[in-house]
Amino acid sequence: MPQEPKNLQETFTPALVLDRTRMRRNVSKMNESLGDTMLRPHLKTSKSVDVALETTRGRKSGVTVSTLKEAEYFYQNGFSDILYAVGMIPDKVERVVPMLLAGAELTFVADDLMNVRELGNAAKSAGVVLKLMIEIDTDGHRSGLRPDDARVAEMSQLINAHPSLEFRGVMTHAGESYGLHDPKALAEIAEVERAGAVKAANSIRSAGVACPVVSGGSTPTALSASSREGLTEVRAGVFVFQDLVQSNIGICSVDDIAISVLTTVIGHQRERNWLITDAGGMALSKDRGTASQKIDYGYGLVTPIEDSKPIPGLKVTAANQEHGIISSDNTSIPWDRFPIGTRLRVLPNHACMTAAAHDHYCVVDSGSTKILSVWDRINGW
Amino acid sequence: MPQEPKNLQETFTPALVLDRTRMRRNVSKMNESLGDTMLRPHLKTSKSVDVALETTRGRKSGVTVSTLKEAEYFYQNGFSDILYAVGMIPDKVERVVPMLLAGAELTFVADDLMNVRELGNAAKSAGVVLKLMIEIDTDGHRSGLRPDDARVAEMSQLINAHPSLEFRGVMTHAGESYGLHDPKALAEIAEVERAGAVKAANSIRSAGVACPVVSGGSTPTALSASSREGLTEVRAGVFVFQDLVQSNIGICSVDDIAISVLTTVIGHQRERNWLITDAGGMALSKDRGTASQKIDYGYGLVTPIEDSKPIPGLKVTAANQEHGIISSDNTSIPWDRFPIGTRLRVLPNHACMTAAAHDHYCVVDSGSTKILSVWDRINGW
Repeated sequence: MPQEPKNLQETFTPALVLDRTRMRRNVSKMNESLGDTMLRPHLKTSKSVDVALETTRGRKSGVTVSTLKEAEYFYQNGFSDILYAVGMIPDKVERVVPMLLAGAELTFVADDLMNVRELGNAAKSAGVVLKLMIEIDTDGHRSGLRPDDARVAEMSQLINAHPSLEFRGVMTHAGESYGLHDPKALAEIAEVERAGAVKAANSIRSAGVACPVVSGGSTPTALSASSREGLTEVRAGVFVFQDLVQSNIGICSVDDIAISVLTTVIGHQRERNWLITDAGGMALSKDRGTASQKIDYGYGLVTPIEDSKPIPGLKVTAANQEHGIISSDNTSIPWDRFPIGTRLRVLPNHACMTAAAHDHYCVVDSGSTKILSVWDRINGW
Repeated sequence: MPQEPKNLQETFTPALVLDRTRMRRNVSKMNESLGDTMLRPHLKTSKSVDVALETTRGRKSGVTVSTLKEAEYFYQNGFSDILYAVGMIPDKVERVVPMLLAGAELTFVADDLMNVRELGNAAKSAGVVLKLMIEIDTDGHRSGLRPDDARVAEMSQLINAHPSLEFRGVMTHAGESYGLHDPKALAEIAEVERAGAVKAANSIRSAGVACPVVSGGSTPTALSASSREGLTEVRAGVFVFQDLVQSNIGICSVDDIAISVLTTVIGHQRERNWLITDAGGMALSKDRGTASQKIDYGYGLVTPIEDSKPIPGLKVTAANQEHGIISSDNTSIPWDRFPIGTRLRVLPNHACMTAAAHDHYCVVDSGSTKILSVWDRINGW
């Protein structure tokens, strides 16, 4: 990549573009939606300090991460109160001991009694205290104990009584919301998420254990909830960029998508009505999240370089490793409009996966190709 | 990651494991299959100097790459005669000028007359000579001119006559072979690939232009061809690792797959008969290449840590960002056999995409968990 690209017309392709205008609008919408409820943004989407500071509006605390590498990265960049929202196990305690001994405020999640006991043993051996939340499964989507499971209260007592563990509360994630697209159904699952988390918290309180944190959230439920009573915070991540999956769910429009992959036309296959580009599966990811939704966007919608409004009829219909194939829905592609060398952008199905294919963001404002900043991001574990 | 992990039992998960025994067997099989025909391995699969040297058996020349970053990386590591097998465009000439001026032997591909003229102009302006091959489309899969297209000969004459271009030959890739699984159909498409490349080369020779290189190949066609007459080299990439897609095609067995993702069980969801692991879509990729094949392997087959033979009935059926869900085909998962903390390995659908999720390989021998080496790899552009 050239050292200091100044414009999307010059930077090497494929590259990841971040529309700052749209991102800021997305952050505003989420904050308006949440009102007084604390947003603990999930930084797994951006994995970038610069994006994180936009997401939190400058606050360096109260965030969620999906890997311990993210925890280290944000901690090293001055963030406190970091929730690692993937089940913690004793084997991984060694990794976080240096951070904890240095004073990092990290919180972990667990959902298994024996595992919690072993986490206690590991923390004791390492001379640290692990802050723990109990993961609650409100919708049968993935991990967690059901809200009415008697082990919820038992686990809170076990954690509360252990000198090397500190009980923080409950957390849940209604991931099934990703499979919906009806506002009523979304409001319902948001309520299932809220009510389940609150129910679990109350069973803990009834067992005599304080439960200061009641954490729920996903982008669809955060933007669809009619009540947040009893929740102390909401976790959401992808809202900062939005994507085609979220637009199919109905909680944003295609014109809210703040992230895209800059690509160059490298070939014409006229007999087949294909534009060949340099953004394939490596640059776009192989995520086909819209395949099972109301509109299948292939591997993404195509926009001109200077703005992010889709060009009618065009989508990426195949993604080989470093070749993308753009097809036209019905009419013949106007070849003269897209000569070899033409730069286009592709709006992604799933922002988290597409962004992870890249190591930096080219930041622009809506309607402009001028690169304002290049922001780094991390990947891996 | 701990600085010097010594064993798959200790290294941080998820991590990418390379079974050196299987890799070497795969390289031997390919070399035996090719006989005297030169193998120009596609290094897009491994993107690693260490793996490349295993693939070429120590030869630092005659390789294929999919990005200019790979070209730079292998050139900087002493490789010569590098074919960049994705359509070259004038915009990208600036990127390769430093390498060419330093003496790198790079070859590029093109399939459009106007683009070739503009590549000639760009090369002239930059004071370099671009070696070019014409890409031939033998199976309607992606890029290239059809073997009988009159522009093939015309393009070779144009390149040959241009002082800043050097004509090297023709190349083709029968990517449609990935959609087959019958040995007879595979042998037929290998012959279509061979015959098409040779036909194009002969049309060039009839037009009075020397055509020294006739390059064909994909892993399936390389291992299925009954004749290589007229081909001067074969390009294949994924054979070095193999994967579940290739085993479905029938050109390897599941027991040939040399790459896997090391993962740890982080949860039990007994009501749903799920093991939750720490290898999700980020570690496995979202490639679902087997979804349309004869056996759908979900997001991968599960093996014990100490060997790579699948555990009957288990596969990864869902891949969230950092959570994998392993389900059992029919019987209840034996929970005592897989307590939280159990390490497993996942054989991938598509080795190129899964490997790209990682930045290093933990190299082991078959049947051993001892890490012999940690080999770096590159990603990005």
